[in-house]
Amino acid sequence: MSGLILRDAMAADLPAILAMLAGDVIPPGREADPSDPRYLAAFEAIDADPNQRLIAAELDGRIVGTMQLSFLPGLSFIGSWRGLIEAVRIAADLRGQRLGEQMILWAVEQCRARDCKLVQLTSSATRTDAHRFYARLGFVQSHVGMKLHLRD
Amino acid sequence: MSGLILRDAMAADLPAILAMLAGDVIPPGREADPSDPRYLAAFEAIDADPNQRLIAAELDGRIVGTMQLSFLPGLSFIGSWRGLIEAVRIAADLRGQRLGEQMILWAVEQCRARDCKLVQLTSSATRTDAHRFYARLGFVQSHVGMKLHLRD
Repeated sequence: MSGLILRDAMAADLPAILAMLAGDVIPPGREADPSDPRYLAAFEAIDADPNQRLIAAELDGRIVGTMQLSFLPGLSFIGSWRGLIEAVRIAADLRGQRLGEQMILWAVEQCRARDCKLVQLTSSATRTDAHRFYARLGFVQSHVGMKLHLRD
Repeated sequence: MSGLILRDAMAADLPAILAMLAGDVIPPGREADPSDPRYLAAFEAIDADPNQRLIAAELDGRIVGTMQLSFLPGLSFIGSWRGLIEAVRIAADLRGQRLGEQMILWAVEQCRARDCKLVQLTSSATRTDAHRFYARLGFVQSHVGMKLHLRD
């Protein structure tokens, strides 16, 4: 697999990105119609913040993957920045072709370029295949991830 | 326990906050002298970003706790913001007095005030007491947390 382009997403990429997000959520049904203006507002909040990047993975003119990178300042590790990877998705028909590996390795390089001390992510506890995937790329499962939902 | 004041940290709070960070790390020894200018630079990066808050918990004029809150925009959940809690520390001699509970409940309210859909955190896999603490406050251990260190 070659020719994968990784770049910051544009508003025009949103329908394709939202289709991937909506098609692969746990539980299903939590997302709205892609035309909902709250999606564009969220995109604009990400786009306006130099510490947030929504990434589009493009292959032969088609958006085939997405992820969000956050760069977080902090005091720990002698005032180090850390990178956070969230909302990783790959088009269902293109899994198993190491696109995800290219995406994550690229994301790690972006974090390195921002002088991050570490890169962190959480993965749904049920997705043991994803845990193996990240472990193969060097991630260590050292933490538990906990969430508190504030509203429906 | 009453009289706990929760507020944004000031530069003058850094020595006390850094002492708590350095005294409770896994593994020990990863931090530098509190006078290292990289800590002040990190504080200033946090302080300048409206989506980052370094919190000081003050009791009778003493800094007894700290945590960092990050507010993250995102596309998921119909373009919802989420809150991230990191680097929670409480003075060693004041544990078991529910200061942590007051801090986390306050943090959750800050996230609610920012219209976050959820609050998330990771906790070291070895800290089962912390997992029980967060579970009691409603957090669900739905994810695994993975980290990749980029440099020593």
